[in-house]
Amino acid sequence: MNADRARHSHVILLHYPILNRKGEVVTTAVTNLDIHDISRACATYGISSYHIVTPIKLQQDLVRKILGHWKEGWGKTNNPVRAEAFVTTHIASSLEEAASSIAAMEGTPPLLVGTSARTMDIGAFSFADLRENDRPVALVFGTGWGIAPQAKSAFDGFLPPVRGPVEYNHLSVRSAVSIVLDRYLGLREE
Amino acid sequence: MNADRARHSHVILLHYPILNRKGEVVTTAVTNLDIHDISRACATYGISSYHIVTPIKLQQDLVRKILGHWKEGWGKTNNPVRAEAFVTTHIASSLEEAASSIAAMEGTPPLLVGTSARTMDIGAFSFADLRENDRPVALVFGTGWGIAPQAKSAFDGFLPPVRGPVEYNHLSVRSAVSIVLDRYLGLREE
Repeated sequence: MNADRARHSHVILLHYPILNRKGEVVTTAVTNLDIHDISRACATYGISSYHIVTPIKLQQDLVRKILGHWKEGWGKTNNPVRAEAFVTTHIASSLEEAASSIAAMEGTPPLLVGTSARTMDIGAFSFADLRENDRPVALVFGTGWGIAPQAKSAFDGFLPPVRGPVEYNHLSVRSAVSIVLDRYLGLREE
Repeated sequence: MNADRARHSHVILLHYPILNRKGEVVTTAVTNLDIHDISRACATYGISSYHIVTPIKLQQDLVRKILGHWKEGWGKTNNPVRAEAFVTTHIASSLEEAASSIAAMEGTPPLLVGTSARTMDIGAFSFADLRENDRPVALVFGTGWGIAPQAKSAFDGFLPPVRGPVEYNHLSVRSAVSIVLDRYLGLREE
């Protein structure tokens, strides 16, 4: 059942190490919409936890402040349905720290599964592979121009790129997370 | 072929008539991310045109200014790949005006297909219905708490709500557009 699968599935959003448009490794800025849209998508697909990763202390504080507003502050009273989406949203300073938190929740390390708009030359997983495996799954998404190659060795494998019917392929990370969760866990009637 | 299908498919984003959280009919504000994320998703899925609908003149001017930056200004020079996503993005003052623009492009009125997080009590389309029909298709998305019932009579039918495996169902419109386009036109390997 996809709901059981979702209870052992996690999402990690990386802001470092990330490529910029020129192919340099950078730390990207956390955006408010990455917190909101991705928390809401994770809640809709029953994801167990969502980890926003940034090494920058000021950005971690910003995310904590926004989460506090929704978990304990005015947001919770004013819009409880929206607030519910943030219950499982966390902050971490590195990919390793996020993976350790998930391992602590699950009692076993998760399968660390990368996503990319490009085909990666390391072990590939299909969505069916993910649904059928018996380990917890952490889906990792990059911001900017994608996860830097230096981080690749941390992964057990990558999902194939999400593609439409044309060559152009520049989805926002918010769109990419939503589509990947739907392909992985969405209910389909057709 | 989905690429041919996409060439006769269009997206409309409504900011009026929209329900707010209390069930009142309102005009919502256009957000910068609704322009960006949805233009990028439309470009990735080969959608022929994307229409942002607001009756508010100041908001129309704001959207025109942002589109101008990308279609002709600094954005086009600085980030041509991103700029490409905005080529087919338009502004309209009403659902009727957007539908008329699409009819003029296609030479025939499109099938007007609504989307909603709730099941609507008018004619329902499946994604397979849309792919197999021979008329152009305009997919209409609401902002806020969704398309107001008063607009329902304009539609030929609605798609079923996008659902994950749990009860919670509060996707952002950016997520909803991305997932609907992927279910309708995405390339699937599994």
